[in-house]
Amino acid sequence: MEHITLKKLTQMTSRYRAHLVNSLSGFKSANLIGTADKDGQTNLAIFSSVFHLGASPALVGFIMRPDSVERHTLDNIKQTKSYTINQVDKSMVYAAHQTSARYQKSECEFYETGLTPVYTQDVHAPFVEESQLKYSLELKQIVPIEQNGTLMVIGEITNIYVANGIVQQDGFIDIEAIETVAISGLDSYHTTNRLSRLSYAKPEAEPKSIPISGI
Amino acid sequence: MEHITLKKLTQMTSRYRAHLVNSLSGFKSANLIGTADKDGQTNLAIFSSVFHLGASPALVGFIMRPDSVERHTLDNIKQTKSYTINQVDKSMVYAAHQTSARYQKSECEFYETGLTPVYTQDVHAPFVEESQLKYSLELKQIVPIEQNGTLMVIGEITNIYVANGIVQQDGFIDIEAIETVAISGLDSYHTTNRLSRLSYAKPEAEPKSIPISGI
Repeated sequence: MEHITLKKLTQMTSRYRAHLVNSLSGFKSANLIGTADKDGQTNLAIFSSVFHLGASPALVGFIMRPDSVERHTLDNIKQTKSYTINQVDKSMVYAAHQTSARYQKSECEFYETGLTPVYTQDVHAPFVEESQLKYSLELKQIVPIEQNGTLMVIGEITNIYVANGIVQQDGFIDIEAIETVAISGLDSYHTTNRLSRLSYAKPEAEPKSIPISGI
Repeated sequence: MEHITLKKLTQMTSRYRAHLVNSLSGFKSANLIGTADKDGQTNLAIFSSVFHLGASPALVGFIMRPDSVERHTLDNIKQTKSYTINQVDKSMVYAAHQTSARYQKSECEFYETGLTPVYTQDVHAPFVEESQLKYSLELKQIVPIEQNGTLMVIGEITNIYVANGIVQQDGFIDIEAIETVAISGLDSYHTTNRLSRLSYAKPEAEPKSIPISGI
């Protein structure tokens, strides 16, 4: 195996190190975060750092750099407390990636990338119409991470919209059936092939396969 | 689409809600965290919540519940400041899943699941020999999340071991080539198929495909 020491890591160019270190955590989620400021000016940005934080209450977190291209997302969330998270599927990969371009605040990523904003009565932020699994959140907390100045944004889920037929009997959602993609590194997009769902692990038993019912 | 309101969400059984809400963030990373207490008693546990936090310094975070089955991991990290993160590949899925069984502290998940601990001179915690992409970390901070009592554990990467030939010219690591898996929900394991790496997005240009070089 190749051994990369801390010394080697610190000697890399920042771009090389960014690609390398971003590959280490494994596959990441691909989500579009939709927001609008108080005047209704929308913003849409791809994030690979959305993660599950808890089921009860239903909490989701994501990490952002305050100085990054996605700063309009943060401004809008602070202003309105409202945002949506929209899973990215295979058909939306190019458009979703393109939202990471450095557009001006007055430019609309929906318009520029061909994705469609859609609104519901009780949520200020726009959803992505094309997304087959999306939900609205209310901002709960922004936790500053001392180590590197990033922020963890925590929200509580308030509404979920999911394509018909993919929620299984036990609540599991078959996100492979809607071709949700995974990200590796900074820029690699992947569809998936299920190996198996495995039963709850117990010390004295082998895990068993849990069948999936189709759409 | 199916609309799940906050009211419906709160009325679900806790197990159903756990499956559902764990599916919402999208695909998750699959990693084994290796630790040992000061006497060398090892622990190995699967986590789906490891995420990239920053490249410089190289920081990785993960979320844990203090009362969960993985509490030995937390105790050992607090005691020694040392842990390893080992990517789970296709060949290790059953063993990796089985580490989530509620073994006693005196039982060794390595022994029970057939995975092999391996040590280096300068790291207290064991690596998983079978893993083709693994790294050691030094504990930097434990951030309590007020909203639900979980903890975010932040570590700095100190050594990386990666299979030969999968680091690309620009630093990107082809984790699909080593069959690293992704997780969805609580218990579903997936291999991946690359759609494309896409070039850095700019407002006036379409993203282009970045070729991958083989092993």
